[in-house]
Amino acid sequence: MNFSSNLIKDTVEAFAALPGIGRKSALRLAFHLLEQPEETTTEFAEAIQKMRAGIKTCNTCGNLSDEDICGICKDPSRDSKVICVVEGVRDLMAIEDTQHFRGRYHVLGGLIAPIEGVGPADLTIADLLQRATQPETQELIMALSPTIDGDTTIFYINKQLHERGIDVTVSNIARGVSFGGELEYADGVTLGRSILARTPYKG
Amino acid sequence: MNFSSNLIKDTVEAFAALPGIGRKSALRLAFHLLEQPEETTTEFAEAIQKMRAGIKTCNTCGNLSDEDICGICKDPSRDSKVICVVEGVRDLMAIEDTQHFRGRYHVLGGLIAPIEGVGPADLTIADLLQRATQPETQELIMALSPTIDGDTTIFYINKQLHERGIDVTVSNIARGVSFGGELEYADGVTLGRSILARTPYKG
Repeated sequence: MNFSSNLIKDTVEAFAALPGIGRKSALRLAFHLLEQPEETTTEFAEAIQKMRAGIKTCNTCGNLSDEDICGICKDPSRDSKVICVVEGVRDLMAIEDTQHFRGRYHVLGGLIAPIEGVGPADLTIADLLQRATQPETQELIMALSPTIDGDTTIFYINKQLHERGIDVTVSNIARGVSFGGELEYADGVTLGRSILARTPYKG
Repeated sequence: MNFSSNLIKDTVEAFAALPGIGRKSALRLAFHLLEQPEETTTEFAEAIQKMRAGIKTCNTCGNLSDEDICGICKDPSRDSKVICVVEGVRDLMAIEDTQHFRGRYHVLGGLIAPIEGVGPADLTIADLLQRATQPETQELIMALSPTIDGDTTIFYINKQLHERGIDVTVSNIARGVSFGGELEYADGVTLGRSILARTPYKG
């Protein structure tokens, strides 16, 4: 692409470095920002800089937050008895969006992945075990991806709880075919496992 | 979407306001910028602000430029005899990318569109007529969209040149079916016109 302006070129290249944005889209976005009032463009750039400079990790659960303790951990109306364990903040947000969970969270910051060199010490598992020992904690819901890494992580946490004699219920989120999905389009592994893990019909 | 952080929320909303970016993509981009080194994110935001604050319009042709005269107008190797007239800078860049044109440009800043209230005075037509009077100018290539507005604009410019007795050749870029395109997928208007505007076969 021929740029008559290095200023535009720098912006297009910065946009094109973002995931899912190609050169053509990047150019379109750069021109859009040129056509906006200067104030709007400044606000856009400032929002990004403020976010990057000001974002914090919740001291309790590992959620991203504007303060040292996140809004969910601070909220007295949330149930402290149940902790939902997730890989990352995106999973937490996806669960929050369902509005089906009113407990607390714990963000692991990843999954145990020996091949990629991610061990338990790289995650917030020690913090989770600490939280599990607190008297109000009754249940850990493992809301991790149904992959080998996810299963390994669940196995490891469960083993640690047993070894330390920490008495909490550990549960997995239900796995099976998607609600509303056409059975013929479900992937084979999910479909096969959903037959093995069938549940009694409550008529 | 539930945001535990206003900083993230502001950035997601700023991204989602850009064309072609939905809420899910905006969230993905915000998290990407959080995961990058702070320096990379700062550079991204600064590139945008620098571009918006520093961009200029070339005094000669109307191209976007970092300086008062753009690189194309400054380049002594470009042919001053031919001026390619385009609607906007994006069209100029698309033509530059083809590497088939080595003349100069003139950016109109739009097309005459009476219904939308865009008249000749809103465009850089007066500047174009001025450039056309310069002795080195021999040809204006009208590289405008093949629409009613495009045709109106070409008609108007041509009329002005005649009325002022400015003696330059005016040409249109070729219109017809796309090279390499399947004829059956060409739109009806283009296909119809390409038959009317057929050219002799040079065997």
